[in-house]
Amino acid sequence: MADKITSREKDYSEWYNDIVKHAGLAEHSAVKGCMVIKPYGYAIWEFMQAELDRKFKETGHVNAYFPLFVPKSFLSKEAAHVEGFAKECAVVTHYRLKTSDDGKEVIVDPEAKLEEELIIRPTSETIIWNTYRNWIQSYRDLPLLINQWANVVRWEMRTRLFLRTTEFLWQEGHTAHASEEEALAETRQMLEVYAEFAEKYLGIPVIKGIKTANERFAGAVETFCIEAMMQDGKALQAGTSHFLGQNFAKAFDVTFLDKSNKPEYVWATSWGVSTRLIGALIMAHSDDDGLVLPPKLAPVQVVIVPIYKRQEELEAIGAKVAPLVQALKSKGIRAKFDNDDAKKPGWKFAEHELKGVPLRIAIGPRDMENGTAEIAFRDTKAKQSITFAELENEIPKILDQIQEGIYLKALRFREENTHYVNSYEEFKKVLDEKSGFIFAHWDGTSETEEKIKEETKATIRCIPLDNPQEDGICIYSGKPSKQRVIFARAY
Amino acid sequence: MADKITSREKDYSEWYNDIVKHAGLAEHSAVKGCMVIKPYGYAIWEFMQAELDRKFKETGHVNAYFPLFVPKSFLSKEAAHVEGFAKECAVVTHYRLKTSDDGKEVIVDPEAKLEEELIIRPTSETIIWNTYRNWIQSYRDLPLLINQWANVVRWEMRTRLFLRTTEFLWQEGHTAHASEEEALAETRQMLEVYAEFAEKYLGIPVIKGIKTANERFAGAVETFCIEAMMQDGKALQAGTSHFLGQNFAKAFDVTFLDKSNKPEYVWATSWGVSTRLIGALIMAHSDDDGLVLPPKLAPVQVVIVPIYKRQEELEAIGAKVAPLVQALKSKGIRAKFDNDDAKKPGWKFAEHELKGVPLRIAIGPRDMENGTAEIAFRDTKAKQSITFAELENEIPKILDQIQEGIYLKALRFREENTHYVNSYEEFKKVLDEKSGFIFAHWDGTSETEEKIKEETKATIRCIPLDNPQEDGICIYSGKPSKQRVIFARAY
Repeated sequence: MADKITSREKDYSEWYNDIVKHAGLAEHSAVKGCMVIKPYGYAIWEFMQAELDRKFKETGHVNAYFPLFVPKSFLSKEAAHVEGFAKECAVVTHYRLKTSDDGKEVIVDPEAKLEEELIIRPTSETIIWNTYRNWIQSYRDLPLLINQWANVVRWEMRTRLFLRTTEFLWQEGHTAHASEEEALAETRQMLEVYAEFAEKYLGIPVIKGIKTANERFAGAVETFCIEAMMQDGKALQAGTSHFLGQNFAKAFDVTFLDKSNKPEYVWATSWGVSTRLIGALIMAHSDDDGLVLPPKLAPVQVVIVPIYKRQEELEAIGAKVAPLVQALKSKGIRAKFDNDDAKKPGWKFAEHELKGVPLRIAIGPRDMENGTAEIAFRDTKAKQSITFAELENEIPKILDQIQEGIYLKALRFREENTHYVNSYEEFKKVLDEKSGFIFAHWDGTSETEEKIKEETKATIRCIPLDNPQEDGICIYSGKPSKQRVIFARAY
Repeated sequence: MADKITSREKDYSEWYNDIVKHAGLAEHSAVKGCMVIKPYGYAIWEFMQAELDRKFKETGHVNAYFPLFVPKSFLSKEAAHVEGFAKECAVVTHYRLKTSDDGKEVIVDPEAKLEEELIIRPTSETIIWNTYRNWIQSYRDLPLLINQWANVVRWEMRTRLFLRTTEFLWQEGHTAHASEEEALAETRQMLEVYAEFAEKYLGIPVIKGIKTANERFAGAVETFCIEAMMQDGKALQAGTSHFLGQNFAKAFDVTFLDKSNKPEYVWATSWGVSTRLIGALIMAHSDDDGLVLPPKLAPVQVVIVPIYKRQEELEAIGAKVAPLVQALKSKGIRAKFDNDDAKKPGWKFAEHELKGVPLRIAIGPRDMENGTAEIAFRDTKAKQSITFAELENEIPKILDQIQEGIYLKALRFREENTHYVNSYEEFKKVLDEKSGFIFAHWDGTSETEEKIKEETKATIRCIPLDNPQEDGICIYSGKPSKQRVIFARAY
């Protein structure tokens, strides 16, 4: 099984593609740049959705749904926004097909041309703020705390499954507030929600920070982000939360009467995470044998594989295991007894490793005699014998340990691959030889940032939130700097 | 509050629009034909989704996600399918915008023209069966039981919120089977799932039946449906389950090796329900005071309104009610204490009626003295006094009674508005004077069906599944007939 998978060392990029393919997560579709999310991949997305949705509701948000289409003119209303999104969008120009005159094919009906073209939403600020104009009159209508689960389209020339696709699934929160302070607090709150989700559910440590002007969301005043490190040392932006100021309120003329009856523009935030997180999950934890899933997001958390020769042995194991599976399920644990008689245990072991099942339990005739079982950890590959009677109580604890272990391993990896450099020479050397996150002084200008990006493909991932202030000099320009920022090559 | 709403008698269609608007369910967007589903409407959809999704999984289905875009050529591969769907679709022709030469506006970049136009999916049979070709080799790969939650687009000239919109949300199941028998059993099973959901959750009685050839899904061998009656006597198709035979397998060349190693085309089904169900829910149960929601789909099931003059009274009521709300929540009941001090009880009563909260509890100073409360039923408008201490135990039972009562009322309405006619004169008279479902003999030809539709706007809604066979003569042609079918005007 594992020989299907290219090793990370040989070709990290192929390794990633192999995992996505052989674990049955997704595949390319007939439409360039669009993916099919296969059932196993989609199940992981459903667990992510469930937890995020619960968190959004717990923090006072409600869901709604806004149209897929954005009139072309809407995009232009916010100057920075159109600059960022007009270049890569799908444009609907007609609303009907017809049979060609020779009757041989179906063609676009030239008579069915739209007066104004429609853009498939790349993000929904414009259509939503155009709607909010009618929903908000007074401070009593605020805050509006709305989230949407939706598909969006950004025309990408170079795509990679999950990480960068023309169509992807995401959630986008769009909130409206009566004050700058409240909107900023919301932006920070949602960043915390994402960071906690990444660490507690995905098992991926993240650095919370602020984007530089260059990397900011088109139309935002400030973009907050969480940045994660992948196993090749590259960074992956795992979620963003934008403080939009009054930009969209001004573009769409959304005002409210404040308590003193004075009209004011509304303050806005938006925030989102996407199916890209599945890519992050793979790249952060998996190994050369396949997927490694944190238990909280694993479609199957525990698989029990019977080892037997004769049919009676299988039946005896089945009878012994059935109450355990039932007991685990009643505790909310996703357990499965793999009694498929057409496959050998060795095949099953490899298959469940490939699919990233966190805990495997094997039970053979000797175990039946001794009242034991063998448990195997997907993440560490450790195995041990355990008393069968203990399984029911131990499994929940073991799953928690695995969840924590996966996180700690990723954290250790990040720490080992975080570097502090003080010169541009050192910067380039570390970037090429070691990769990872590089903390370096920067003069704060877009020019320097762009030069470094041009020359090294490294970008400033973020200015960490609780960044220590220290005097230094910019590694590129030699100008004075007050703090280090994080550079890395990124997905 | 209620005077915002046009009465059903005065203008049924305006009444519907008023409910959708004033209960905050949805509104028209800036894009013609597309709606914004507002948080209260979307919450109802989320409850529908949760229950349907649970049922789909219980019957062995998994979710996946397929692209929004369908290459134009795919639509043409199934002859009947393209005929049915090409006429009303959104066509993507370009993938980039650019700033116009005068710098004043954003225009479609003529250089970014797609080689092959992409259609926004009106339904996903074609893209899915093109994918299944690679997933299915042998009978061991079958059945494939997959569902997708998605948005679809059908370009509609005349739209109505929820009932007929250009973009709508739905689920579409697409299954693949090794035998005709198994595919037919799946089609029937999903029809049962829909019927049970409609009756037990929506509280809407439905007739299960088969569509005539004229009304069949484009590409299906047989379309099964559930048909509901609205309060104006018109029919509404609430869900369909299609037996697709081998049509899509042949169009997309999807074969499997059967147990004897012989290649065979795969058998298919598809089935779907949509946000249209929210329209059905409104039209089936609501009244001139607003929405009436069955408890199982109500975002708030029980609202408690305090009646007080002085602040201490509000606090005393609040203290008494808090443990009850907590106890109800722990039973999974969505209860809310409406302690908004800015609104009067009368306003609140009207507002909760408008929003369809099934059960309202009012508690005033006299109740506090006597240990009582007043409960008011949204559906029947009945009120009664109850001992406060009984509420915790009684409320779950009362909600079940309301759920059942709403269903029975709709059932009685349908029975009272179901007619049997034996001549075309009688048919037209009943249709115009009484409306409702009309059971009449039909000769089984499309010609007759079309003539009747042209002349009366009534269509054959379905041939009921367990239809009694009886000899008769077609009301239109006078030709012999073996059974009555259901005619009605429909949404």
